[in-house]
Amino acid sequence: MPPKELVIIANTGDDETFHNLHICPDIDTVMYTLAGISDRDRGWGLSGETWNAQEMLLTYGTNPWFNLGDRDLGTHIRRTDLLSQNFTLSEVTTELCEHLGVNQIIAPMSDDPVRTRIKTKNGDLSFQEYFVKYQCKPFVKGITFSGSELAAPSSIFLNGLNQARALIFCPSNPFLSVDPILSINGVRKSVIDFKGPKIAISPIVNGKAIKGPAAKLLSELGHEVSAVGVAKYFRDLCDIFILDNKDSHNLNAIKKLGIEARTTNTIMTTEADKISLAKFVLSLTKTFHD
Amino acid sequence: MPPKELVIIANTGDDETFHNLHICPDIDTVMYTLAGISDRDRGWGLSGETWNAQEMLLTYGTNPWFNLGDRDLGTHIRRTDLLSQNFTLSEVTTELCEHLGVNQIIAPMSDDPVRTRIKTKNGDLSFQEYFVKYQCKPFVKGITFSGSELAAPSSIFLNGLNQARALIFCPSNPFLSVDPILSINGVRKSVIDFKGPKIAISPIVNGKAIKGPAAKLLSELGHEVSAVGVAKYFRDLCDIFILDNKDSHNLNAIKKLGIEARTTNTIMTTEADKISLAKFVLSLTKTFHD
Repeated sequence: MPPKELVIIANTGDDETFHNLHICPDIDTVMYTLAGISDRDRGWGLSGETWNAQEMLLTYGTNPWFNLGDRDLGTHIRRTDLLSQNFTLSEVTTELCEHLGVNQIIAPMSDDPVRTRIKTKNGDLSFQEYFVKYQCKPFVKGITFSGSELAAPSSIFLNGLNQARALIFCPSNPFLSVDPILSINGVRKSVIDFKGPKIAISPIVNGKAIKGPAAKLLSELGHEVSAVGVAKYFRDLCDIFILDNKDSHNLNAIKKLGIEARTTNTIMTTEADKISLAKFVLSLTKTFHD
Repeated sequence: MPPKELVIIANTGDDETFHNLHICPDIDTVMYTLAGISDRDRGWGLSGETWNAQEMLLTYGTNPWFNLGDRDLGTHIRRTDLLSQNFTLSEVTTELCEHLGVNQIIAPMSDDPVRTRIKTKNGDLSFQEYFVKYQCKPFVKGITFSGSELAAPSSIFLNGLNQARALIFCPSNPFLSVDPILSINGVRKSVIDFKGPKIAISPIVNGKAIKGPAAKLLSELGHEVSAVGVAKYFRDLCDIFILDNKDSHNLNAIKKLGIEARTTNTIMTTEADKISLAKFVLSLTKTFHD
């Protein structure tokens, strides 16, 4: 795919302020991955990272539950500095991407603050508190997106949506990664009204989440923990639902929801797996246009 | 000397904001030195320092002329965070010192912003621009302290002054290190009115500055580049002037200014030199009280 033809909408509901620095974990994960500088073994942050600033922050008695690497801090410092100069988060993200040689467009869902709040049996938590501090352990009773009623989608998100030939929902947590984006004023309607093909990939394979708390959350929020449970979530939002070969027994149940369903290998272990899934998705978008 | 009996007044005219972070080079130098974690070879910053955050900041195209180490950034991040929570610079400094195990009191001259501005033949510069970016090379025409008319001395500075048995002007640049402090509302008068012994140590030995641009500045601002030139600056401010043994020929000229003058070794190369000079100064304060 040529550069700038791929627009990735990043969830900013997971953003958090630590030490007065604005941290965007989702944007950074996408940005570092596309720049080829992410730490693949650890699964987050930058490769070749060191932790000396954090060690000093710990000396000063600050809370140690969120890890901030030295190189990663360079990003947070630069972002916070630019935001304090009244650049929008979209502008700042574009600026950071340019310097890292990222050729795709990373669009924050909104330039306005929206924060995912997790209502748990242990109290109301920010996403990072739930995810990092409490390692997704508390039982979840509900999720809200503070600020979303007042937030507007970013203009690079809207431009992307207007110019897109297809919408892809990558395998991700419906409640924590897709819902925050859909919570923004007008976005759900724009997605439903989108004319081109809309394709979703199941994050649940064989009753388990490929990564993260998707299965646990489906269960706690009263949904079926399967590709069918996820497909029900996407019923109004997508035309084609991709599930893993292992779940081919779910094909008919999903088709009954009024969505096309296709199977393939969705578990991306190697670079070849990723390329193969991407090609499969692209081929489906072409079929749809024919 | 028992802990908390030594109050060190730190010049904050050299403070600067980089990347939206509040940097206090003078406070940090004193703090790191007293905590025993300063880099003695380099002469500034922390020992065992790394530069990975800065490398990332350079990747983002930021200005590289001021070096920010990773551990040092921990300090700047913590300070900026606490200042953004409306703690005063004095409170923040006390907090940082406590965590670093510093038992002496470091008092910022003021909690209000005062910035040293250097008028040079190349234009008006901040202290760090003059000192670090242009390495003291531009010819200095004058120095001002922006904000000093509106600034109040910090209360820990005033408390220190009220309770002190002696005032010591360490060997330092009159124009860049002492003048900023004296520029604060009421400070010069309080120093002149101080009843106990006031002792100044010459930063000029044998016509040269022990460190930094003191000699160059004395010359450019039209003063005699000698211990006598410095003593003239301190004429109203101190009772006893300490000059190096090498400058004993200046003793009489200084006494003629109406100040007591004493010679000793003022060049501190080893730990023993520092202790010896400190003991000499302390013995003088006792003589005065007798």
